[in-house]
Amino acid sequence: MREVRVLEIKQSVFADNDQQADLLRQDLREKGVFLLNLMSSPGAGKTTTLMRTIEALKDTFKIGVMEADIDSDVDAQTISKSGAKVIQLHTGGMCHLDAEMTRQGLAGLETNDVELAILENVGNLVCPAEFDTGAAKNAMILSVPEGHDKPLKYPLMFTICDVVLINKIDVLPYFDFDLEKCKEYIHMRNPKAKIIPICAKTGEGIEEWSRWLTEEVTNWRRGKA
Amino acid sequence: MREVRVLEIKQSVFADNDQQADLLRQDLREKGVFLLNLMSSPGAGKTTTLMRTIEALKDTFKIGVMEADIDSDVDAQTISKSGAKVIQLHTGGMCHLDAEMTRQGLAGLETNDVELAILENVGNLVCPAEFDTGAAKNAMILSVPEGHDKPLKYPLMFTICDVVLINKIDVLPYFDFDLEKCKEYIHMRNPKAKIIPICAKTGEGIEEWSRWLTEEVTNWRRGKA
Repeated sequence: MREVRVLEIKQSVFADNDQQADLLRQDLREKGVFLLNLMSSPGAGKTTTLMRTIEALKDTFKIGVMEADIDSDVDAQTISKSGAKVIQLHTGGMCHLDAEMTRQGLAGLETNDVELAILENVGNLVCPAEFDTGAAKNAMILSVPEGHDKPLKYPLMFTICDVVLINKIDVLPYFDFDLEKCKEYIHMRNPKAKIIPICAKTGEGIEEWSRWLTEEVTNWRRGKA
Repeated sequence: MREVRVLEIKQSVFADNDQQADLLRQDLREKGVFLLNLMSSPGAGKTTTLMRTIEALKDTFKIGVMEADIDSDVDAQTISKSGAKVIQLHTGGMCHLDAEMTRQGLAGLETNDVELAILENVGNLVCPAEFDTGAAKNAMILSVPEGHDKPLKYPLMFTICDVVLINKIDVLPYFDFDLEKCKEYIHMRNPKAKIIPICAKTGEGIEEWSRWLTEEVTNWRRGKA
């Protein structure tokens, strides 16, 4: 196995996370770094989707990835095979990252030459939604086996996401998952959410996702977003 | 749709949750109520497993169910069709239940005639593991689509569970899930954990699970556990 760097993140001392998040966003804009905050339940396919994303965009942007987990470095090990810059963040038991924790992660990653930084947040549909990380955009992955009713049960997560990837559509025939109802529920929470069905395993839908992300990063770096 | 009761739970005022949990456990033992705390990721199949469990044990024990969610009452609506006593708990955005919140839920459920009370905790592998609810036993469901590496990433959840149900084994052929490796990882975290592969959709494995639960409830009510 490749050696990956592991950073133990310290708990934040700042009371006003929103303010810290705005400051971080401003710093990143000045440096031309687009930060994507990627969230999902455990096992929805964040790492596999990231591998596909890196494959699709590695010649377009310099990419850096922060893998946040309570423990282990299996995801960072996987990402390191893509050739992208990667760091494993350990949250010390914390169920989410806030802006200051994200800033620590970015410092550990060293973003001087990074244009697209991706934070793979802790697998959790509740707490990560409550903390602005300072990201330019929030993305989440909902996977088919989880069921189409999740926007009803985890409203905030779907409300704060700019884009929802519906992953594992290759197994749609084996689950009672109503794609149209799912889209309706997501738009009930967030009418502006972009929804892209994908299969990270086979690569289906990755082109549309990469196109969306490319446009967002480009606009951000031109100061248009 | 059937009317289900919805209880808005208040945040706890007690600093020492472990003490409150021990007190609640003692109260429940005196009343002959066995409380099971059922945890998992969102969409791992808690409600479907509960429907099967109620079907299997409804003639053996008087069963009461507390469905905890951030929002919605879809799970309580489902459980109400089983004929079991049920209440929907809304956690006010909280990502877990502690002992005092569980006590509020049990009061709302009215457990006078209940022998087996089941708390379906918020779908989350992080926070619920950190709070003793006062349950006699902790159970969790890991579903095949989530991947066999979850015990590496969410150590505490697997450490505190007495039993792990590996659900959705009907879709094993469609996922890269190594059952033996998964068992090895679970036992690495918790050598005593009972592991039962099930398929809540088809009913496979529910007999073994019901047998385990029946024995635990019976021993508890006899003061032997």
